[in-house]
Amino acid sequence: MRERLLAAEKVKAIDWRDGALHLLDQRRLPFEEIWLACHDAASVAQAIRDMVVRGAPAIGISAAYGVALGARLRLAEGGDWRAALDSDFSLLAASRPTAVNLFWALNRMRERLQRLRDGDDPLAALEAEAMAIHLSDREANLTMAQLGVDLIRRNQGNLQNILTHCNTGALATGGFGTALGVIRGAWLEGMVERVYADETRPWLQGSRLTAWELANEGIPVTLNADSAAAHLMKTRGISWVIVGADRITANGDVANKIGTYQLAVSAMHHGVKFMVVAPSSTIDMSLATGDEIPIEERDGRELLEVGGQRLGADVPAFNPVFDVTPADLIDAIVTERGVVERPDAAKMAQLMCRKRLH
Amino acid sequence: MRERLLAAEKVKAIDWRDGALHLLDQRRLPFEEIWLACHDAASVAQAIRDMVVRGAPAIGISAAYGVALGARLRLAEGGDWRAALDSDFSLLAASRPTAVNLFWALNRMRERLQRLRDGDDPLAALEAEAMAIHLSDREANLTMAQLGVDLIRRNQGNLQNILTHCNTGALATGGFGTALGVIRGAWLEGMVERVYADETRPWLQGSRLTAWELANEGIPVTLNADSAAAHLMKTRGISWVIVGADRITANGDVANKIGTYQLAVSAMHHGVKFMVVAPSSTIDMSLATGDEIPIEERDGRELLEVGGQRLGADVPAFNPVFDVTPADLIDAIVTERGVVERPDAAKMAQLMCRKRLH
Repeated sequence: MRERLLAAEKVKAIDWRDGALHLLDQRRLPFEEIWLACHDAASVAQAIRDMVVRGAPAIGISAAYGVALGARLRLAEGGDWRAALDSDFSLLAASRPTAVNLFWALNRMRERLQRLRDGDDPLAALEAEAMAIHLSDREANLTMAQLGVDLIRRNQGNLQNILTHCNTGALATGGFGTALGVIRGAWLEGMVERVYADETRPWLQGSRLTAWELANEGIPVTLNADSAAAHLMKTRGISWVIVGADRITANGDVANKIGTYQLAVSAMHHGVKFMVVAPSSTIDMSLATGDEIPIEERDGRELLEVGGQRLGADVPAFNPVFDVTPADLIDAIVTERGVVERPDAAKMAQLMCRKRLH
Repeated sequence: MRERLLAAEKVKAIDWRDGALHLLDQRRLPFEEIWLACHDAASVAQAIRDMVVRGAPAIGISAAYGVALGARLRLAEGGDWRAALDSDFSLLAASRPTAVNLFWALNRMRERLQRLRDGDDPLAALEAEAMAIHLSDREANLTMAQLGVDLIRRNQGNLQNILTHCNTGALATGGFGTALGVIRGAWLEGMVERVYADETRPWLQGSRLTAWELANEGIPVTLNADSAAAHLMKTRGISWVIVGADRITANGDVANKIGTYQLAVSAMHHGVKFMVVAPSSTIDMSLATGDEIPIEERDGRELLEVGGQRLGADVPAFNPVFDVTPADLIDAIVTERGVVERPDAAKMAQLMCRKRLH
């Protein structure tokens, strides 16, 4: 399946070339494919904050390249470049609060910095580290796709109607996706009848990004209002809900795009299986439960306007962009380290001690 | 409370004057207040189909006036006006399939027609019948508001955070609302801390209509994505979900705006009370269960476009605009005939035999 998945790869959203980070501007998709070039850490932080790039793994990868860009400028400025780079780390860390991959990637870059020996080229080392993070995310996608497909096959081998939320594909990762990677793999194996994509208000990642990615690859996709999910489960034979994650805590609670929790509650009510697909860089063993995850609230205008056009009345809007799904509503967490079924703290700890499969 | 509710009335959406039906065009709200005048049954049917007027009770009232308009034209044409009027009935009946108030109102008009005696003025009789339907819906709103407020008070007297879906206010009825009427009553009684309004995709009745109505009256309202409802229940102390209905079957199953079912599942999961408020004209004792209710599917463009502006990729969209909430997820159905708690077939039958309270 690995070769077929790689052969089917069509979209990429993060490109490191000519000493700059090129990002496919996801605010403009699917209408325009515009690339933005970032030459310093500040512009990367801005791109993350403004959602030029989004999706937990893609944010982590971008931040890592942001550190490499920052180091080049700080070295060129002369003086105490390490101290100056610290402010770049802080700027990047403050760009978005919920996805832990951001902090994980920054930590890896910081550790690489600390391991520098006399005579090492700091720029080459940091650039190589960022590229390694990018590459390993792509590899993780491949492994998770295989593991997720195996899990579906073990549960019920028939044609699946799969419901997904937000965008977890090539646009959200360094490869072809987490949840959407599993869905792509299942499609290549002939196991998918149709994918239902929640439109995913307010930012419409489903209708703008997921629908676009799947349609590009000829995978049958139907869009639905987020609020139609329970009705779909009751009437359209949904067998799996498959989603990504922005942070997973030590007990297996999962922060993901707002609406995921409601989906999980509905899935449990209907006996629909619920799968979370995320690289282990999404797992934050420092937090005991999902109650400790900071939930980003964004400007209410994201809910009140589309493309600058006002949608409704002038009232306050509550716009949390993530929510927390407790572990007991989750059938399986699929990572590149392995699959945790019916997650709990003991199983999560065991997973994180396990040697990487790739 | 009746007097205070009437004194607080600000918006009306259906106006019968100068021999025409004037409808506040709900497609343009809250940005423009434009009234459309209908002079015949066909234009009323069109207005219902195109959602110039929406909301189950408002659709019923409009259809009744549509019959009165039709009769005037058919009589003026001469010939077999009753046969000609039959085609107006058919046109109006075909305008939207799910809300039963439409068929209930048409039946009442047909019965009035059948009761005409020699010497009666058919036009005056039909116009009076339509006005009686309109007036009794307004009265039903007042009674339901009182009953709903009493129910909230009996359950928990403290300040309430109430979540509502779609629009069930003055714009949806002949008075000031069903679910929103109860919310208005509770506000006047000092029992409401805040109302959370689902934006209600795809048509945005929540952000365009409910937010506008509540803000107009100074009732504290916060808008949220439909998918944030479960997160709200977990984090914001929601005590009641209060919604309207488009059709209620003999066992207490409720068809209402898409997303209502998902809300009810989430409410049950969180121990949040779930109240349905609808006049008895919404109850269809001819259907045993909600499985028999025809669910309208509208053009996918409602999901894919806003104001003619395309939102997402060019893929098929599944756009059912109603869903069915089974009776066992409902704590109470409030009608002008009384309140049915934990509805079932026996209690619904008892309600429908009961003498009207007003």
